[in-house]
Amino acid sequence: MKIINKIAEMQQYSTLQRCEGKKIAVVPTMGFLHEGHLSLIDCARKEADIVIVTNFVNPTQFAPHEDLDTYPRNFEEDCKLCKERGTDIVFAPEADDMYCADRTTWVIEEKLSKHLCGLSRPVFFRGICTVVTKLFNITLPDIAVFGQKDAQQALIITRMVRDLNFPIEIIVAPLVREKDGLAMSSRNRYLNEGERHRGLVISRSLFRAEKMLVQNGIGRLGEVLSMIVDNISEAGGKIDYVEALDAATLEEPDENVKTLLLACAADFGKARLIDNVLVKIGE
Amino acid sequence: MKIINKIAEMQQYSTLQRCEGKKIAVVPTMGFLHEGHLSLIDCARKEADIVIVTNFVNPTQFAPHEDLDTYPRNFEEDCKLCKERGTDIVFAPEADDMYCADRTTWVIEEKLSKHLCGLSRPVFFRGICTVVTKLFNITLPDIAVFGQKDAQQALIITRMVRDLNFPIEIIVAPLVREKDGLAMSSRNRYLNEGERHRGLVISRSLFRAEKMLVQNGIGRLGEVLSMIVDNISEAGGKIDYVEALDAATLEEPDENVKTLLLACAADFGKARLIDNVLVKIGE
Repeated sequence: MKIINKIAEMQQYSTLQRCEGKKIAVVPTMGFLHEGHLSLIDCARKEADIVIVTNFVNPTQFAPHEDLDTYPRNFEEDCKLCKERGTDIVFAPEADDMYCADRTTWVIEEKLSKHLCGLSRPVFFRGICTVVTKLFNITLPDIAVFGQKDAQQALIITRMVRDLNFPIEIIVAPLVREKDGLAMSSRNRYLNEGERHRGLVISRSLFRAEKMLVQNGIGRLGEVLSMIVDNISEAGGKIDYVEALDAATLEEPDENVKTLLLACAADFGKARLIDNVLVKIGE
Repeated sequence: MKIINKIAEMQQYSTLQRCEGKKIAVVPTMGFLHEGHLSLIDCARKEADIVIVTNFVNPTQFAPHEDLDTYPRNFEEDCKLCKERGTDIVFAPEADDMYCADRTTWVIEEKLSKHLCGLSRPVFFRGICTVVTKLFNITLPDIAVFGQKDAQQALIITRMVRDLNFPIEIIVAPLVREKDGLAMSSRNRYLNEGERHRGLVISRSLFRAEKMLVQNGIGRLGEVLSMIVDNISEAGGKIDYVEALDAATLEEPDENVKTLLLACAADFGKARLIDNVLVKIGE
């Protein structure tokens, strides 16, 4: 496994591999890897000859009051894990190389990004679309793997790739949970023991809601959402959103909806936790 | 020479050529080619093994009141000219293939695009950045050639390529003029005989201004700009802007400016004419 820091070197490497007919998969990450990330690497490993994991805490997706400075980092451990899972290249650029001080270009998505996390984090998806475009142009992959944990991000990147004609296949890999149900996240590190335990209410409420919706359809969706809100609030979570949207469009579901995205975000202590389940309706 | 209409076919072609070690240059155009465009093709021909000319009147860079519907088109003649100049591929997609009805992704540049043409055409550069990104992702070039005629566009695309890390070299080729000095443009077709003659005032004023600036420096820039404004107005031109900006930043020039971009836009009849000269200061 090789670590590449420089943008030009990364582009040269990928160009060379492509010319040799190698299929390249990229797994974009912000590091502090957990089993969720590693499952994406496994997925990439199955699909491609060359697996590139990018490790870059992207400043442009954080608002000034958010946790850019305290975002957990552990580059050595990340590299060890990447190597164990068969990564070929870790691309870890410096922020100053990625972003010129006088940068003025952005990639924006103006509809899907207006829901869910986009409401409380208005610069978030602009930062993500821009950095992912950059990482695509630097790693030149055939395939890029994202996680269903960040369901809205996966939808937006898929839309961006279609709209801008990137010659890249997007694979969305399943959300990975701890044994007790908590969605894996680098930010779980922020939870103290009590918060860690109380945070379980999120996944448990979502699973319960899923069961109710599979049994009864979306006729009493309001009640289902209220149940989730009440449960999380009672456990001391500060709710950002609890929503059930059409998983294909992020619009309010109508009678023709095929798959619901049941998604929520809530703060437990310093940790913003997000989680979601996909619910197939009418099957 | 081959004409390709389909996006996937274009991507496959370019991918194959790249794998064979061929250097690809693209010349993005909206068709109705004149000697200005053809000079870009000549430039591409010198630099690359494969020359792709894209021919697409991009709807997203036109505002509703602008001339999308009447923009001159002559695809057969364009192809004949492309072939004569040694083009390998003309890429001419359908608008419906290029833009999904539910597209929501844009590439924006938020500083350089706020000057000159961007003030009266607020969606123009967003449309250009987006379509050029798409054309880059479809034609996958090593080199892209743009004309100095559209000086602001060339600057913005160069900035976008840097900011988004496209692995593409941008070449800006000189502006080409008719024998009498009129900057070549597809929109010159809109001019009647009288307007065509009166429109010469633009290039003549710019050349006169250039001489004054080379002789006297930028100390009396205001007078020079007034001279251009007065001349164009007297000839019946409806001025959008006459400006002298730092050619590197499009900011107001200060005492350290190395090259001035002296640029103007004015309507003569139905034709919006733009022109510019680069003036080296202090040499």
